[in-house]
Amino acid sequence: MADEVILLDFWPSMFGMRCRLALAEKGVKYEYKEEDLKNKSDLLLRMNPVHKKIPVLVHNGKPVCESLIILQYIEETWPDRCPLLPSDPYQRAQARFWADYIDKKFYGLGRKVWTTKGEEQEVAKKELIEIMKVLEGELGDKPFFGGEKLGFVDVAIVPFSTWFYAYEMCGNFSIEAECPKLIAWTKRCLEIETVSKSLVDPHKVYDFILQLKKALGIE
Amino acid sequence: MADEVILLDFWPSMFGMRCRLALAEKGVKYEYKEEDLKNKSDLLLRMNPVHKKIPVLVHNGKPVCESLIILQYIEETWPDRCPLLPSDPYQRAQARFWADYIDKKFYGLGRKVWTTKGEEQEVAKKELIEIMKVLEGELGDKPFFGGEKLGFVDVAIVPFSTWFYAYEMCGNFSIEAECPKLIAWTKRCLEIETVSKSLVDPHKVYDFILQLKKALGIE
Repeated sequence: MADEVILLDFWPSMFGMRCRLALAEKGVKYEYKEEDLKNKSDLLLRMNPVHKKIPVLVHNGKPVCESLIILQYIEETWPDRCPLLPSDPYQRAQARFWADYIDKKFYGLGRKVWTTKGEEQEVAKKELIEIMKVLEGELGDKPFFGGEKLGFVDVAIVPFSTWFYAYEMCGNFSIEAECPKLIAWTKRCLEIETVSKSLVDPHKVYDFILQLKKALGIE
Repeated sequence: MADEVILLDFWPSMFGMRCRLALAEKGVKYEYKEEDLKNKSDLLLRMNPVHKKIPVLVHNGKPVCESLIILQYIEETWPDRCPLLPSDPYQRAQARFWADYIDKKFYGLGRKVWTTKGEEQEVAKKELIEIMKVLEGELGDKPFFGGEKLGFVDVAIVPFSTWFYAYEMCGNFSIEAECPKLIAWTKRCLEIETVSKSLVDPHKVYDFILQLKKALGIE
């Protein structure tokens, strides 16, 4: 039986883009189903009754939820092509640590940058830059977080770069001026076809954020 | 060379207890180092410079941080004895999902139960019970979350049970009355020697919480 793979997703989601990129790296064919988050499908509610969130990977009818867990599932289900995680347990733990770090630190601060103003926004910008500098420290002189090749941490972080332009416009600052090595890494990733095809246009994300701000009553 | 395994920990930490239990299940000998969280050791700050938090597992001089990542590292480093994760990728993803669910939902609500009063506390109690009922649903009729044996999810959740008494005393409610199946599962876990030896006395946790409330200026 051929595998039936469906991704329930929403186009600007960095968490969804992680899954799209991992599936592209593995060369897994799948059906992409765009969700309307204001009117979630019965399928989404049935497949992720606990969190009711995208992305959900539905593999032969069975759901896997939470993007980093989906990445590990993709890695373990299609292990032969383009390994994302190293084989050494210690290196695997380090990769999981940095992916977890992103989830704990990045998303919330990024959101603050575009939802707040004044002092609160300044603090969020400063903290976001600090996080990025920590990531630059971890990257060091390697071309990718995964070493010579794109790996788990690269796949976990690079979708966030599609939101950088929106952060910069909303926060009136330059990420490249503060973190040139991180931006150089982003550009290196985008030279890889699976990455450039899986990530959305940052200008479209910014337009989406402007609409969202309006809908949320934030000027 | 014999393995040198050190656990930097703090006795009432449910995250630390997870690691103690996993090491006990695997029969790994280690040195336990109690941290004073008000005056963190140079070793802790050096081994976890990013989060500066316990638990940290230091294996032959190299640190692994974040309790669920430590559990997976323990599993992958000592795979032969007492497997914690199932071998099937889908079942592994499910185990990771429920462990992640605990971290996202449980700790924060539990904290609210002992740090707040009045309406805020009532809401937190209600939500905590809802989380526990979701967990009861996942447990179903199985003796353990891992099936017939203690597994990854059991190890991730059971340390929280050492805080139940403190939640009940601070919140003036009975968890057993609301979630008898979860409490029966807790008791089943405690019949296993590795569990009973790894978990601390709930009355001591309550005493600790009372001191902490005083120190934080919460009555």
